[in-house]
Amino acid sequence: MNNVRPSCERIAPLVPYDPKYLPAEAYLSANENPQDVPEEVRREINRRLKAMSFNRYPDPLANGLRDRIAEANGLERECVLLGNGGDELLFNIALAWGGPGRTFLNLPPTFSVYEQNARLTGTEIVNIPRRDDHSIDEEAVLARVAEGGIDYLIVASPNNPTGKLASEEFLLALLDATDALVMVDEAYFEFSRMTMRPYLARHKNLVILRTFSKAFSLAGVRLGYILGDPAIVTEFIKVRQPYSVDAVSQIIAETVYENRASFERGIVSIIEERARLIEQLRKLPEVKAYPSDANYILFRAEGAGEVWRALYDRGILVRDFSAAEHLTDCLRVTVGSPEENERFLTALKEVLIERRKA
Amino acid sequence: MNNVRPSCERIAPLVPYDPKYLPAEAYLSANENPQDVPEEVRREINRRLKAMSFNRYPDPLANGLRDRIAEANGLERECVLLGNGGDELLFNIALAWGGPGRTFLNLPPTFSVYEQNARLTGTEIVNIPRRDDHSIDEEAVLARVAEGGIDYLIVASPNNPTGKLASEEFLLALLDATDALVMVDEAYFEFSRMTMRPYLARHKNLVILRTFSKAFSLAGVRLGYILGDPAIVTEFIKVRQPYSVDAVSQIIAETVYENRASFERGIVSIIEERARLIEQLRKLPEVKAYPSDANYILFRAEGAGEVWRALYDRGILVRDFSAAEHLTDCLRVTVGSPEENERFLTALKEVLIERRKA
Repeated sequence: MNNVRPSCERIAPLVPYDPKYLPAEAYLSANENPQDVPEEVRREINRRLKAMSFNRYPDPLANGLRDRIAEANGLERECVLLGNGGDELLFNIALAWGGPGRTFLNLPPTFSVYEQNARLTGTEIVNIPRRDDHSIDEEAVLARVAEGGIDYLIVASPNNPTGKLASEEFLLALLDATDALVMVDEAYFEFSRMTMRPYLARHKNLVILRTFSKAFSLAGVRLGYILGDPAIVTEFIKVRQPYSVDAVSQIIAETVYENRASFERGIVSIIEERARLIEQLRKLPEVKAYPSDANYILFRAEGAGEVWRALYDRGILVRDFSAAEHLTDCLRVTVGSPEENERFLTALKEVLIERRKA
Repeated sequence: MNNVRPSCERIAPLVPYDPKYLPAEAYLSANENPQDVPEEVRREINRRLKAMSFNRYPDPLANGLRDRIAEANGLERECVLLGNGGDELLFNIALAWGGPGRTFLNLPPTFSVYEQNARLTGTEIVNIPRRDDHSIDEEAVLARVAEGGIDYLIVASPNNPTGKLASEEFLLALLDATDALVMVDEAYFEFSRMTMRPYLARHKNLVILRTFSKAFSLAGVRLGYILGDPAIVTEFIKVRQPYSVDAVSQIIAETVYENRASFERGIVSIIEERARLIEQLRKLPEVKAYPSDANYILFRAEGAGEVWRALYDRGILVRDFSAAEHLTDCLRVTVGSPEENERFLTALKEVLIERRKA
């Protein structure tokens, strides 16, 4: 037949997620680690990859890696689940705790994939926007969960793209105030040094999301994980693709996790560069730089869309949120290497001077 | 809170897909290629992996690989989409063409993941069981689609686990009789040498699924793809995870695809071994071996569950379908290397002789 019936009603109007990842000289748009995996770790990875079989299916649950992560966190294997990037686990929560007739509480502006997954799964979305300074409207959130009917929430901490941690006091109050599943997305936890992990035992409705894509330089390899109660992990297992985490990624991530101490110097450098970048950005009268506990900085500048274009013309790719709801005139710059950061600052100053003249 | 509300109603009763992949000496349960990627191709893969960046996100659409597959099939890039194994694409069709209020037509016994995905997405399932010889009840399928209300079908050809191709004449009649999206799952096409690819231009409602997991020895690496109309591919893109195909898998699969001619000898050997295995199985009076166009053989033997166990006790893992609906007393053996096949046949003969004595 030269005709096909349309996809289902809630899918047809969707627009695919666009990472806006364009060719550039300095990639400061995707919150990647500017340094690749250290050379000696790469060599060990190469050694292990040479010895592995490509033709056999992977261990579905990646138990080798799972055990290492569990042990490092003082947990049992059953409290950990790997995913094909944090992305897969973010989709799984929507599939398992969302769906038609279920409700997701969202705190925009935040990572847009949360909302996209709710739409994909036919989950109702209740938005409680953040305040002007991007802090969570804590009273409104607690009041809304007290009303009931919320099935799951995701709190990015630090929040992407705005940069700050949620308050631990608030998260604990939230966990007490609802039986909804509360995912705390700690994708950037290695740069904030704050985690809700100590509270897992007391709060069965807490699940923590982590990733290898940022601090551990494996954005290209796709590995994320959750920490949570075994009963929650079981529900995630029910909805996941059985072989979603390939055998090569398992070996790479295992090697990286065993050698995670060797990433520490790079992480410290990013934290130092973050402070320097914020300090420099605050010297620019046209720029309002927001504080950050992560490896990126959100800043506001009038005509941000044009600023983004002028930076891109100079070879520097930052992330343009200027047209996004709640983020008018905002751009997000990843903390790169000292050289990349310097290059970004120089270019930004040039652009702003040109704009003063215009 | 020391309590969490349950996952959504349709997820809670699900049982996770269990690949039943147990430690063994001869793995003949998962339809893997018994040979790994040829040594010279592995060396080229190692070279390319050494030069890649782990710390940068992958190309979301894997366009390098997409172009190679498109060109080899005489199609445009927009007609091809990669997935994290065929599994991801099987899930995507359920998400995009299924969902609450939509209906999937299933032809059991077939690959159980089709039904599992329909359940996960809240899609209604209409089953039209195959005839006793596992052939499709063509008249019943055509009559059912003529009634209307079917949103998508998946026809595995060759069918897994039963082994035979669907008739081309039937598939063309089906494509003409409905505007439902018809996925022909050609996961084993390299062993059957039959494809519906020539009919893509004429049938907008046809989408073909292929995989690197079988003939191309990449079960551990997770790469599948669809061929279809660009409008269909667009709907799959809307529901997919943007970075589901990692950068390492992209490089491995690109290298394998460029060197696919070097897999030909292995494929021919499997086809020859398949004929030999069937011939040998047919000599055993207790065994009914079904014909196969794939790299596995389904066979029936009384007390198959016990036969499975006795084979496993001898180090040989085959797939046990003895408790599956429509497959009473059936086991499926993958065509392995000549040595593995011989070992399997010897063990099976021993087991059957013991059972005669008992």
